Formats: sequence, C-alpha cells, structure tokens
Amino acid sequence: MNDVNARLQALGISLPTPPRPLASYVTSVRTGDLLFTSGHGPVAADGSITTGKVGIDLDVAAGRAAARLTTINLLATVQAALGSLDHVARVVKVLGMVNCPSTFTEHPTVLNGCSDLLVEVFGEDGRHVRSAVGVSSLPLDFAVEIEMVLQVR
Amino acid sequence: MNDVNARLQALGISLPTPPRPLASYVTSVRTGDLLFTSGHGPVAADGSITTGKVGIDLDVAAGRAAARLTTINLLATVQAALGSLDHVARVVKVLGMVNCPSTFTEHPTVLNGCSDLLVEVFGEDGRHVRSAVGVSSLPLDFAVEIEMVLQVR
Amino acid sequence: MNDVNARLQALGISLPTPPRPLASYVTSVRTGDLLFTSGHGPVAADGSITTGKVGIDLDVAAGRAAARLTTINLLATVQAALGSLDHVARVVKVLGMVNCPSTFTEHPTVLNGCSDLLVEVFGEDGRHVRSAVGVSSLPLDFAVEIEMVLQVR
Repeated sequence: MNDVNARLQALGISLPTPPRPLASYVTSVRTGDLLFTSGHGPVAADGSITTGKVGIDLDVAAGRAAARLTTINLLATVQAALGSLDHVARVVKVLGMVNCPSTFTEHPTVLNGCSDLLVEVFGEDGRHVRSAVGVSSLPLDFAVEIEMVLQVR
Repeated sequence: MNDVNARLQALGISLPTPPRPLASYVTSVRTGDLLFTSGHGPVAADGSITTGKVGIDLDVAAGRAAARLTTINLLATVQAALGSLDHVARVVKVLGMVNCPSTFTEHPTVLNGCSDLLVEVFGEDGRHVRSAVGVSSLPLDFAVEIEMVLQVR
Repeated sequence: MNDVNARLQALGISLPTPPRPLASYVTSVRTGDLLFTSGHGPVAADGSITTGKVGIDLDVAAGRAAARLTTINLLATVQAALGSLDHVARVVKVLGMVNCPSTFTEHPTVLNGCSDLLVEVFGEDGRHVRSAVGVSSLPLDFAVEIEMVLQVR
C-alpha cells in the first residue's frame, strides 16, 4: 500500500464512489501537469447532503465537517482521474465557498476542514493557496462548495 | 469552413464583436497553452444587458438564456484572441456566478446554458470542469457572469 | 535598482512584510511557470484591516483604496516568493471579490484599485484578465479579497 492510501486508512477514511456531475460537465480535466476539478459539495457515502447556511442552519464546527466531507469527495474524484493519489505532486489551489449570511466572518475556520485534511493526507505536498469566500447561495443548498487545482505526475 | 464555425452556423449563432473590458484589464491572456478569460456578462449584439436577480427578476429559463448569451460573448473573445475557434484544444474550466437571492438552488440549470452550448460547439473537447455559485451582486447588475480557462493549440 | 522597484518607489509604495496565512495553507504556490496566490485582504502595514461592506460601511472610493492596499499585500507576497518582482513575466489573472450588499453594481470601479496599480507597476505586462464579483461576506469582514495568477520567469 502506498503512503497516501496508508494515511487515508490511518485517518479512518475510505473514499466513496466519485461524485457524478449535476449536469453537462465533468468532474476533472487534466491539461499538461495540472488537474482542475469541478466544484464539489458535502455529499456523504449514503447520498445525503449537508445543506443550509453556516452560521444559521449549521454552526462553525458543522461547517468545518462539511468542508472535510467535501474534500473526501474531491479526493475520490482525483483518485478516479489519476488512478492513484500517489500521482498528486502538489495541491496547488483551493477555492472554498461557504454558504452563509452576510454577517459571517469565520470562513477560515470552516475551510480548515479542507486544508487540514489535505496536509494530513499529502504532507507538505498538500500545502496550497486558498481563497475563502462567503456566498449567498449554492447549488442544491450545499453548505460549502470547493474546487481544486493540483499538479500531477 | 471549419467544423466549429459550421456548428455555430448550424446553431444559428453569429458571434458578436468581442466585448470590451469595463476597465483597465484585458478580456483574455494566453500563457503557455492555456488561455484565461475575464468574467463576461450577458450582453446582446445590440448592447442591451440581461440584468437582475435570477429567481426574482428573471426565472430560471431566462437565467439559462443569459448564461448561453454570456457564453456566446466568451466565444467571440476566444475567437478574437486565437484567430479561430479551431485553435481551442479543450475547454478546461468554467466558473459561473449567478446573481440571485440567498434562497436560490437551481444554479446548475442556469449554468447549463453555458455548458450545453460548449458541448454543442466543441463536442467532447467542450467538456469542462465547472463551479456554479450564487453571488449577491455582479457588475452592472449582470444576471450571470462566467469566466473560462481553455487549452489552446 | 530594477525597473519594477523604481516604479514602486516613484509611486511612494514600500512593500510591507508579506502577510501570513490565516490558517493551514500558504500564500503562494509555484507550478511550472505559473505562480498562484491565496486570496489576500486589505491589511495595512500597522496590521489594521479595512473591514465592512462597500456601499454601506465604505463608499466606492474607500473600496477602491482597499483593493489597492490588498494589491500591495499581494505584491509583497509575490516578491517574497520570487525574490524579486522582476521575475514576474506577466500578470495573468485577477479574481476580485467585493464584500457588498445585493444592490451594489460598481465592482469594476472598486477593482480598478487593483488593476490600475498592476499596470502602473508592471506596464503592459501588468494587463490581466479579471472577474469582479459581489459576495455577501468575507473572512475577518475584509472589504475586498483578491487572488492572482502570474506567469513568472
């Protein structure tokens, strides 16, 4: 077993079936040594979705858990695209969108549910640039939506 | 006539004059074999703009039409940048922002006005990753704003 | 002294200590000849932050100043990453997010505080694609948040 899968196992994470797009697009595209992903949402293995506004319907801890769950879905997509997560050379970029009211300011804590997991899984290669932003609504009322750019080998 | 232009003609689409930036930036930049575009809005050939909030001022079908119109403007920009749409090797990425109230959840349907047209025009090379997001406001009160990344040759 | 630094000096701009990330991510990642930055906010040299909603708590001119200040922070990050701003071959892309109410439409004017400075500093190499968008909230109540992609040498 390779390092990345060993870390996932140590974290108690089994990757789900990669999510399917909601419409006429794809979940990842590779161009050169960059892999771009679609925006993913917090969909659990049983298909249930974490919905609602962080700061109203969910507290910050639940928002953070939604960002972690979204990242597990992203990892499933990346593994399906590359054959193995060992082909990830570097996580380059994360854009994290939090569904929240206009008074919300704790986006960094919510998105740490993504960033921390990426570092746990990939180590230093998991360190990425990030923009965290609060949006007024998301598809299917997702609590968070995250897209990534990765360097692959 | 090349394939892409033939498809545009079959779709009854004639590309407008490429839009001009609203300020001190440009509408596309090529770096290596990637072409990045600015965010574009739904501006018709006569200069009229589809404005307002999808879900309040426009219904979903009108929002979808605005996304399609925005994409036609994007294609005009790409054609002007590359000389011909035949130089598009792959549509890599779409970021679609819908101007809508906080209760809106049908962003995927709205953005299909973009995604479906890209597949109609470029076939499999038009399949892209996508993030759809609801935003509280857009420049000039655009109903939608879309930016793209393309692989070119 | 090189050209870019001479221009900064002529503009009366001294770059601050590069900002530190708010969480478990980094402020820039280079992959190939592209440099991606994290979203940055309007933090002054003394650590004070321009907060609030443009159009309510700040007028458009103050929002524009916040976008300029944010860009100065971005330049500090880029200089720290590359050793010198002379290694910037081209500013490729700017994503500018304005913290504002749902009725706001002057995002282009706000983001010109960024775009104009980039052209003042880098000349034609500073011309970039841009998306400007209004968001309902930002981390720490930043008035604006901006991320960039640059081509480097």
